[in-house]
Amino acid sequence: MEQLFSGLDNIYDEIIEIRRYLHEHPELSFEEVNTAKYIADYHEKLGHQVRTNVGGNGVLAYLEGGKPGPTVALRADFDALPIQEQTDVPFKSKNDGVMHACGHDGHTATLLGLAKVFNGMKSKIEGTIVFLHQHAEELPPGGANAMIKDGCLDGVDVIFGTHLQAQMPLGEIGYRTGPLQAAPDRFDIKIQGKGGHGAMPHDTKDSIVIGGQLINNLQQIVSRRVDPLESAVVSVCNFEAKNPYNVIADTAVLTGTVRTFKEEIRTFIEKEIERVIEGTCHVSGASYEYTYSKGYPTTVNHKAETELVARVAPHVPGVETVKETEPIMGGEDFSYYLQNVKGTFFFTGAKNPDWDDAYAHHHPKFDIDERALLIAAKVLGTAALNYMKNEKQTLVNEDQ
Amino acid sequence: MEQLFSGLDNIYDEIIEIRRYLHEHPELSFEEVNTAKYIADYHEKLGHQVRTNVGGNGVLAYLEGGKPGPTVALRADFDALPIQEQTDVPFKSKNDGVMHACGHDGHTATLLGLAKVFNGMKSKIEGTIVFLHQHAEELPPGGANAMIKDGCLDGVDVIFGTHLQAQMPLGEIGYRTGPLQAAPDRFDIKIQGKGGHGAMPHDTKDSIVIGGQLINNLQQIVSRRVDPLESAVVSVCNFEAKNPYNVIADTAVLTGTVRTFKEEIRTFIEKEIERVIEGTCHVSGASYEYTYSKGYPTTVNHKAETELVARVAPHVPGVETVKETEPIMGGEDFSYYLQNVKGTFFFTGAKNPDWDDAYAHHHPKFDIDERALLIAAKVLGTAALNYMKNEKQTLVNEDQ
Amino acid sequence: MEQLFSGLDNIYDEIIEIRRYLHEHPELSFEEVNTAKYIADYHEKLGHQVRTNVGGNGVLAYLEGGKPGPTVALRADFDALPIQEQTDVPFKSKNDGVMHACGHDGHTATLLGLAKVFNGMKSKIEGTIVFLHQHAEELPPGGANAMIKDGCLDGVDVIFGTHLQAQMPLGEIGYRTGPLQAAPDRFDIKIQGKGGHGAMPHDTKDSIVIGGQLINNLQQIVSRRVDPLESAVVSVCNFEAKNPYNVIADTAVLTGTVRTFKEEIRTFIEKEIERVIEGTCHVSGASYEYTYSKGYPTTVNHKAETELVARVAPHVPGVETVKETEPIMGGEDFSYYLQNVKGTFFFTGAKNPDWDDAYAHHHPKFDIDERALLIAAKVLGTAALNYMKNEKQTLVNEDQ
Amino acid sequence: MEQLFSGLDNIYDEIIEIRRYLHEHPELSFEEVNTAKYIADYHEKLGHQVRTNVGGNGVLAYLEGGKPGPTVALRADFDALPIQEQTDVPFKSKNDGVMHACGHDGHTATLLGLAKVFNGMKSKIEGTIVFLHQHAEELPPGGANAMIKDGCLDGVDVIFGTHLQAQMPLGEIGYRTGPLQAAPDRFDIKIQGKGGHGAMPHDTKDSIVIGGQLINNLQQIVSRRVDPLESAVVSVCNFEAKNPYNVIADTAVLTGTVRTFKEEIRTFIEKEIERVIEGTCHVSGASYEYTYSKGYPTTVNHKAETELVARVAPHVPGVETVKETEPIMGGEDFSYYLQNVKGTFFFTGAKNPDWDDAYAHHHPKFDIDERALLIAAKVLGTAALNYMKNEKQTLVNEDQ
Repeated sequence: MEQLFSGLDNIYDEIIEIRRYLHEHPELSFEEVNTAKYIADYHEKLGHQVRTNVGGNGVLAYLEGGKPGPTVALRADFDALPIQEQTDVPFKSKNDGVMHACGHDGHTATLLGLAKVFNGMKSKIEGTIVFLHQHAEELPPGGANAMIKDGCLDGVDVIFGTHLQAQMPLGEIGYRTGPLQAAPDRFDIKIQGKGGHGAMPHDTKDSIVIGGQLINNLQQIVSRRVDPLESAVVSVCNFEAKNPYNVIADTAVLTGTVRTFKEEIRTFIEKEIERVIEGTCHVSGASYEYTYSKGYPTTVNHKAETELVARVAPHVPGVETVKETEPIMGGEDFSYYLQNVKGTFFFTGAKNPDWDDAYAHHHPKFDIDERALLIAAKVLGTAALNYMKNEKQTLVNEDQ
Repeated sequence: MEQLFSGLDNIYDEIIEIRRYLHEHPELSFEEVNTAKYIADYHEKLGHQVRTNVGGNGVLAYLEGGKPGPTVALRADFDALPIQEQTDVPFKSKNDGVMHACGHDGHTATLLGLAKVFNGMKSKIEGTIVFLHQHAEELPPGGANAMIKDGCLDGVDVIFGTHLQAQMPLGEIGYRTGPLQAAPDRFDIKIQGKGGHGAMPHDTKDSIVIGGQLINNLQQIVSRRVDPLESAVVSVCNFEAKNPYNVIADTAVLTGTVRTFKEEIRTFIEKEIERVIEGTCHVSGASYEYTYSKGYPTTVNHKAETELVARVAPHVPGVETVKETEPIMGGEDFSYYLQNVKGTFFFTGAKNPDWDDAYAHHHPKFDIDERALLIAAKVLGTAALNYMKNEKQTLVNEDQ
Repeated sequence: MEQLFSGLDNIYDEIIEIRRYLHEHPELSFEEVNTAKYIADYHEKLGHQVRTNVGGNGVLAYLEGGKPGPTVALRADFDALPIQEQTDVPFKSKNDGVMHACGHDGHTATLLGLAKVFNGMKSKIEGTIVFLHQHAEELPPGGANAMIKDGCLDGVDVIFGTHLQAQMPLGEIGYRTGPLQAAPDRFDIKIQGKGGHGAMPHDTKDSIVIGGQLINNLQQIVSRRVDPLESAVVSVCNFEAKNPYNVIADTAVLTGTVRTFKEEIRTFIEKEIERVIEGTCHVSGASYEYTYSKGYPTTVNHKAETELVARVAPHVPGVETVKETEPIMGGEDFSYYLQNVKGTFFFTGAKNPDWDDAYAHHHPKFDIDERALLIAAKVLGTAALNYMKNEKQTLVNEDQ
Repeated sequence: MEQLFSGLDNIYDEIIEIRRYLHEHPELSFEEVNTAKYIADYHEKLGHQVRTNVGGNGVLAYLEGGKPGPTVALRADFDALPIQEQTDVPFKSKNDGVMHACGHDGHTATLLGLAKVFNGMKSKIEGTIVFLHQHAEELPPGGANAMIKDGCLDGVDVIFGTHLQAQMPLGEIGYRTGPLQAAPDRFDIKIQGKGGHGAMPHDTKDSIVIGGQLINNLQQIVSRRVDPLESAVVSVCNFEAKNPYNVIADTAVLTGTVRTFKEEIRTFIEKEIERVIEGTCHVSGASYEYTYSKGYPTTVNHKAETELVARVAPHVPGVETVKETEPIMGGEDFSYYLQNVKGTFFFTGAKNPDWDDAYAHHHPKFDIDERALLIAAKVLGTAALNYMKNEKQTLVNEDQ
């Protein structure tokens, strides 16, 4: 591992440079053409075999080790979000209204740095490494499923991935066997009232008032209708009823997300939302359209691979704490990989110790401590090398 | 009056043509450059003295009658609204997102037609006619006040104006002494919550939920706080919190209008809105910005001039009913003219007798029965000629 | 009139004593047995012919004047309200939970005092006075209609009545021709949810949450559905869902009142309330019961009799201001009398000049300035005597 | 165990008779005088040593076994709820407004039946049995803590208790090590608006409207403010604003419960409720009173004793399923016993297999399958005898 760690330490500045370049040039999900090219170019310069346009904008790069062994995939996603950045960092987004507000720039820089170091220690690698650069993690249907259909897991024995967590302290690694991330669904509601003059509400059906009642009434699904021992989220994230100041809204559009871990609660909420809309629209005699789109499945980590990460992580320089993490409500299309091959997805703390508080992921002021990239690269790399060297059975022996 | 009536009948087709041309080419308030040019050109062709850019895009045209007499102003407004037209008329708006949804195209065509006919009977006219083409009636601070400051009422003795009413039957003229139209104010609210990931509401202050509560809570101002014997409207017309489906809103913007007839209620509501915002934001620990912008004053018609219209209207061909109308909650910057000179503003019915129901003004499907333009022109013209011939005292005698 | 005025001045202390006695012994509508007896006894002592149990607890007393003339009815109501008094007056209610919080004690004392004085000047009275003591004004179906059916207006030519107004300054008399008081209706709603343990909301349909949404949604009827130029009130006055702190409510009961001046708005609101209930209950899958009970009709004053009061009131000692009053939203079953005979109902100011503010009628701290009783008696008496002496035509002559 | 089982089978009818008698004569928490006497009498007839008025209405009865051994307490609670029973059972509550709607009648009958059978096999019992009959479980501060302070656990080595569960199938036993039941807190809110006439809302501050907004706003604490991975309940269970149909509410009283498993969430919710009240009252300029009363602590079962129940229960006749149960949000003052001695609290299914659905605990139609009493008695008895015979260490050996 020494060669891995020192190799990464040596190119730390380059990793940060890559991350900042990507941060300045974010691209929306399914539109990541330049980012994909950047990644492919990087791997090509290293001499890796590269496949582009995998399931869309996905990129695969292959490193054949000097010795025979299993095939290990390491995944990083690279799309950004439709958010207007509000930070003051010198490498602030140059694309208006688009921002890497979830750390995918960091994931990609981590994996590219790791690729360079692994490339330099190629002869010692006992198997094949697949650098799986996935587009469109943020927007269902996501890139993972399409990449799988396009063969990204062919021949792969195991997959590892990590997510930088801005609100988890730098130096912490979080693992969890079983359900780790929720199923993230989307709903779209259109309220069709009747517009009119702002001074004559009685001639209208005020879509904004109906929308306001709807937002309030939807709160009761989580507060009253779902078993308090279960986890569920219903968030209205988007409300659009754009009108002149004196024109009552003809329509209002609401978009949002539902997060659940269990299928029966997911289905229940899908129906309850419609009941709430129906009743609320009836109050004003309005009509509606409602679409519920199921997103990724729940992300379920495999036991042996999760335990491997938990076991090796404490030995990685920079890692101070390794602990079982609580599941989180955010979704991940890493879930699809785990439905097809063994593997695990873990969290890498990225909160600067000097920050009292950190902005949440997807916030316009989201930021990370960049040293987390080095830690992430080392843990991912260690996990891959350990897996290769010993394979499952051996690892168990080694542990005793 | 015969010459006036037959003259208008003869150019009815042209009036409609003008109206449809204007309908196809609507321009937003304060941006009515082409419309103003169109109007000025029309008057210039008739040989009228024309002043353009009066208080902005306003246009004044003067017709000196053949005989001495008073100066009578006739006003038509010509701006359109930021509404996407949804009608099927062949002369549908060609400007995306802009629509004559309040009949100002009709007002202007009416006044231009009247100008042409008056021009043809110039020698008989006992005084001066001022064709007062006003821009920007829909958007405070409006064009009226700026045109007055720029001299549009200089030398004017009296002013008449009318509004086509899509929900009043064709053939009906509505007049009212005293308060006719409400003071239309505007408020702007920005809720500053704290954005974040749609799956982690507890790390955010959800501006959409706060906005929903605010909309609901604002209802109580009219339903509970204002004396039920008084008239008041508080409408939230615009709600913007545009976000990806999985990003909780950092901010929400609400814009709306308040309508009142009495100053003390206006002031009360301005304060109550802030109290409601304060309390509602406190519930979630959010902050806010609030601006209340007073719009036009109440439109108060003068007695003698209103009675003149009420008296002459029944004799106009096409007019079937003349009655005292209820005041309406919509505002009008005609109010400023009436604060400076005598005059009256009346309503001309424009609802097609075959329509069961008519779309409200400002609705994307707003439409009028074009025959109303002819009636409006005849009543306006008759009022002007009567005023000139007799002046107030004489008119009273004539009436007995 | 001198005899009337000085007569009333002389027994002012007795009038106050009566009022305070009644205030201490309030009785609920339809249960006013002791009050009725008290009234009947008083008249009997004066030697008046008395009829008791008129249409329930109503009391009629007749004073035949010494000269022939018309029959004038003077009405005072005498029921109290189910309110727990919270004042500190020494004559505070001794009946727990019952209070004269609307001034009916004062009305009755006024009429009894007037009866005594009229009795003393009997020989000069030109006609018959009917002292119409009505029970149950506060609770529909009220006492008026029942008393009419039981003959209380037989032979009556005209009726006068007044209401003490705690928020109108002492010394002011308010009159109004036409609609004076609204139609006061009642609604009863029962929400049938599903009760259960307070810790397990998902097994219940929470009637309190549904009730809360209903209260909020009902606000939009006045704020959004009724023409802002019309007057309407929808008040939920009673909400009962009494449960242990840890038992979710199986049912919730809401009771309230609707006030309108126009029949079409009344009917519209009756239906809208049901629509709002339907939709709101649907949101939670609950059911409901809804009853709408029409109360008294609108109180419509007759022109000549109203003008008589307006004309004579300024000459009454203690009256400082006589003005046309705005209509009020409160209902009155005096409306039934006015549907059967001519007459008028007017307001007598009772707000102490030293009070900055006065508690509203029906408030637990409601109070009046007792000097208003003397003024009310003098105006009522003057109106009656004037009417008798001159009858309408004569009065007009006298006024010139 | 055979003697235990057959003994209980033989007195099954008597157990049911006791339960029905208690069901007919429910008494509210802290008022259970007759029930306590009934229990004490029963034990005295059996010859047990009895202590009454333990920490209030608590009753302790002691059975000295024929052989030496540990002291085992078995607990049953015996208070009822302020609920009006709505079932049709022939033994329906005879106390108006009071009902055994949580199964405590069954708990007590179970323990008395067990006492009789144990009494009959006294010589074989290796230790002491304490029959711990606890009053006032339903109403904080509860009876448990007071009984502990009054010595009910003196000398006790272990405690067992069970709760009949109407929504768990008959034949099922549920156990759980660690947190089993939530901390049940209570809050009391008084909104002080300003009452007045139902027709004049603008002179009032409508406490019912404020209350409605408050109920709605409180929903966001669970739906938006608490981490969705944590469990929390906020229920408004009681809303009182009793008024005549035409008197706007001066005050409204809301009472409810909060359920949590973690102290920091408990504290957070206590504060959030106040913030929501503050903001909501500010919207209408009202004031408030707020009290938050912490109830019982979380009920935390001990490991060895819970495993003992899990191990022996499958061998008990009538038991078909034994499984780890989810924690529940309902509180239990059994928690206090477990803070002082070892023990466990488990659930006994009582849902009749023919019922499609069962009414929740605390519902006016709550009912149980009485055969559950026999099962509960057998499991409790078996657990006690096993504990005695082997004590912890031995039990473990036996299990291997």
